[in-house]
Amino acid sequence: MKFKKILVYNIDRSKNLDPKSWKTIESFGEKIAFVPKDSPKLKQELADTDCVLVAFGTVIGKEEINAASKLKYIGVMATAFGKIDTNYAKKKKVIVSNLKGYSTESVAEFIFAAILEQSRGLEEGKRRGKSGNYSEIGISANEIKDKIFGVIGLGTIGKRVAEIALGFGANVKYWSKNRKNDYEKKGIKYEALDKLIKEADYLSINLAQAKETEKIFDKNRFQKVKSGAVLINTAPMELVDIDGLELRLKKGDITFILDHSDEMSEKDLKTLLKYKNCIIYPPIAYVSKEAAENRRRIFIENIEGFLKGKPQNVVN
Amino acid sequence: MKFKKILVYNIDRSKNLDPKSWKTIESFGEKIAFVPKDSPKLKQELADTDCVLVAFGTVIGKEEINAASKLKYIGVMATAFGKIDTNYAKKKKVIVSNLKGYSTESVAEFIFAAILEQSRGLEEGKRRGKSGNYSEIGISANEIKDKIFGVIGLGTIGKRVAEIALGFGANVKYWSKNRKNDYEKKGIKYEALDKLIKEADYLSINLAQAKETEKIFDKNRFQKVKSGAVLINTAPMELVDIDGLELRLKKGDITFILDHSDEMSEKDLKTLLKYKNCIIYPPIAYVSKEAAENRRRIFIENIEGFLKGKPQNVVN
Repeated sequence: MKFKKILVYNIDRSKNLDPKSWKTIESFGEKIAFVPKDSPKLKQELADTDCVLVAFGTVIGKEEINAASKLKYIGVMATAFGKIDTNYAKKKKVIVSNLKGYSTESVAEFIFAAILEQSRGLEEGKRRGKSGNYSEIGISANEIKDKIFGVIGLGTIGKRVAEIALGFGANVKYWSKNRKNDYEKKGIKYEALDKLIKEADYLSINLAQAKETEKIFDKNRFQKVKSGAVLINTAPMELVDIDGLELRLKKGDITFILDHSDEMSEKDLKTLLKYKNCIIYPPIAYVSKEAAENRRRIFIENIEGFLKGKPQNVVN
Repeated sequence: MKFKKILVYNIDRSKNLDPKSWKTIESFGEKIAFVPKDSPKLKQELADTDCVLVAFGTVIGKEEINAASKLKYIGVMATAFGKIDTNYAKKKKVIVSNLKGYSTESVAEFIFAAILEQSRGLEEGKRRGKSGNYSEIGISANEIKDKIFGVIGLGTIGKRVAEIALGFGANVKYWSKNRKNDYEKKGIKYEALDKLIKEADYLSINLAQAKETEKIFDKNRFQKVKSGAVLINTAPMELVDIDGLELRLKKGDITFILDHSDEMSEKDLKTLLKYKNCIIYPPIAYVSKEAAENRRRIFIENIEGFLKGKPQNVVN
């Protein structure tokens, strides 16, 4: 079986996959079309497509689904799929597959990279070293060992973050919608969300974006964060109330680290950039070579699986 | 019991300990004298001292020990004591105590901080973020998981490095003078030194400085290092043959990270600084707040222990 028409929406052909992989994907359809983000042609292109492939953060709502009456499959080139109306897709018998776990390790390791970079003063240390200044005076550090390391959202990534934190000898606690007994047996303790926010020295936000998690980090919760704490959000910034974050950043006693994709407005970005205690990276959490290879492989396997009647990584 | 005279040699009173701690140390002797490094007064000051306190990297050889006929105790404000002739001290019934383990965690965590900073492209990422460029293009990364992580020297620090690497899911191997069965049971595998150097993706050098370990990383061994490997040396650079390192750095296919204290000559430093794939930090591996507190506490406890007839952390 083949698709009648594959519509590749909001994925840059030249940078997201290698030519060989695109060849493979082309072979899954009778024809293929590439449409950039917010193109006025989108609706017209949707009309006769049975397969839509989209990048991270692409909106596919009721409107788009309704415009694609022949749609059977949406392939997301990302783990997050919060901007796709998966319930409505299900109602319309459209299967949505994501790249579950493709970048788990890459993101989990980045979280420690970014936390340690900050808490070890590496930027200043490297600058001094390069200029031939080998004084350590004024560069201090905090150890992760024996500190409370909180993981908010014990999903695929959160679990790895918790395990690595255990390796560092941290007192690892988590909050998640559901209790995870197998992880509690490893010594990762469950804690109520507000209590965890209040007591953690390190907080890694690893929740999926959904209606109930939007702005879960609100003004009130940011005020509760422990003085001196380091927070890192590699999940979508929709989980965070920017005003609430700014109010706390102003106090100057916490650090907030994020890797920004395209989910924040220019205005919000400019607001956050003002604060030295807010470290904004490009979206480099997921960029490991291993993740890139997983992404390529799983994205293609998902399409193949669907065509063979064995859809995989279905999220709806 | 009190010392007749405490000689504080090569320790800067103003920066190494707080005033209260110096007060405590003063109370352990009838008098106290501070002598800077390479002072011409050293021999004269040694003549009537029974207690010498020294900083990291201070030379106390036969000559100094012979000059101090009343010497009973040498307190080292560091873990490393490679420049003290501990055997000759023992012969002269002088006890040498170090700060065993005071900075174990600080150094072990720094090793991962520095490795991850490099392999995640954080310097470039931060630069882009600060300038409002949120493109991840061109920033790649390697995961630690499933890679061969070699620990050379499974002492106090090496053991923690190995445990943290296990948390990251690495294939952890070690070489050490003696086999450590308890760590092998944890899944840390023993490997012959030359084989480990050849196959490791990450290599952490955690050997103590001694005659048999000097320049253990020679030209021949540097040539064996796997292409793409990241090496980090937080132990004294005396373990490394600088010419051999330079020869390999020239090939441009490995990264070497170190935190330089004062063990390298200006010439060697300048040589290494030429290479972009050699990252030189000031000695910031040991600087955590927790380590500073341990240092203060253990340094004083060592002196107290000796005076009470219960010397501790004796290295000879």
